Amino acid sequence: MEILQVESALVCTSRVSGLQKTSLRVLRSESGRRQVAVDPVGARPGNWVYTVSGSAARYAAGDFEVLTDLTIGGIIDYWE
Amino acid sequence: MEILQVESALVCTSRVSGLQKTSLRVLRSESGRRQVAVDPVGARPGNWVYTVSGSAARYAAGDFEVLTDLTIGGIIDYWE
Amino acid sequence: MEILQVESALVCTSRVSGLQKTSLRVLRSESGRRQVAVDPVGARPGNWVYTVSGSAARYAAGDFEVLTDLTIGGIIDYWE
Amino acid sequence: MEILQVESALVCTSRVSGLQKTSLRVLRSESGRRQVAVDPVGARPGNWVYTVSGSAARYAAGDFEVLTDLTIGGIIDYWE
Amino acid sequence: MEILQVESALVCTSRVSGLQKTSLRVLRSESGRRQVAVDPVGARPGNWVYTVSGSAARYAAGDFEVLTDLTIGGIIDYWE
Repeated sequence: MEILQVESALVCTSRVSGLQKTSLRVLRSESGRRQVAVDPVGARPGNWVYTVSGSAARYAAGDFEVLTDLTIGGIIDYWE
Repeated sequence: MEILQVESALVCTSRVSGLQKTSLRVLRSESGRRQVAVDPVGARPGNWVYTVSGSAARYAAGDFEVLTDLTIGGIIDYWE
Repeated sequence: MEILQVESALVCTSRVSGLQKTSLRVLRSESGRRQVAVDPVGARPGNWVYTVSGSAARYAAGDFEVLTDLTIGGIIDYWE
Repeated sequence: MEILQVESALVCTSRVSGLQKTSLRVLRSESGRRQVAVDPVGARPGNWVYTVSGSAARYAAGDFEVLTDLTIGGIIDYWE
Repeated sequence: MEILQVESALVCTSRVSGLQKTSLRVLRSESGRRQVAVDPVGARPGNWVYTVSGSAARYAAGDFEVLTDLTIGGIIDYWE
């Protein structure tokens, strides 16, 4: 699972039907690379999160029918 | 999901049967790397899109029988 | 399977339900890149481990219901 | 799907049984990185092709029993 | 499938149960990056091999119950 920071919400009016009801976030890695993830936990801009990829991302989105390959798995409080 | 820009259509006369009826697009990342994706949403050259990879790409293509590993999930309007 | 070093435990109070009972570790590659993995073997900070990714990570976590894409597969004693 | 160029055939006398009857090709990316793919379309050295990865690669090889993670999906004529 | 060179065997006394009976090898890419793979073909240090990743790696290991994401698919004799 990757460690990424939430940058902002993403606005898309034209989508495939399998993603229509989800909240999408733009996330950013330490090296600056941006990715898009489904957010089932309500993360806010600036939060550091870890993400789940692959088929587990679909279950983590709360419904296997959600067609995502990246979902926020949790908001990081800290590491030791 | 990755953020990529549509560059052009791709023309292939010799394909495996599992991809024969789909529209293929050449996409380009910010760093210039090119990939090929199935386009079920009608993106145009210059559009920024996000893509779905893995087995979800096959469902996002509208039919699990489509043998793709990358499908356009939506056209990005903007992010905040 | 990747070779990574355990850095620390990870503390997250807000998680998706599919990960609630697992121990999460921050791992670090030789190049310094950090990832988060489920730890079913009890690795300690400083240990070198190898990790299992993809759907096998969920079985390696001891339960296919655990929504992870990376699980520690073993603690490395040495290689020749 | 990646865009790669066919370099040559690959000769292996010792293989796992799940790949025994397939044609293997060495492919090369623009950056020079080499990979091995199953070729169901009859690509020749110098051809530019796009490749299908993941579980779709097994279907694209014509038989889910073929144990590949990369299969040539088509020979590229050109892009606009 | 990647092209990698066998470096050595890997010794791990503490493993998850899904990998207990397999031979593990440390492999090295041309760029020097190391990975761990299950070896069902009996490769020796110095051999160049190609590897199968993803769920196909589990079938290639001879048993879908083997929890690997990387398995040696064959020993390379040469490419043209």
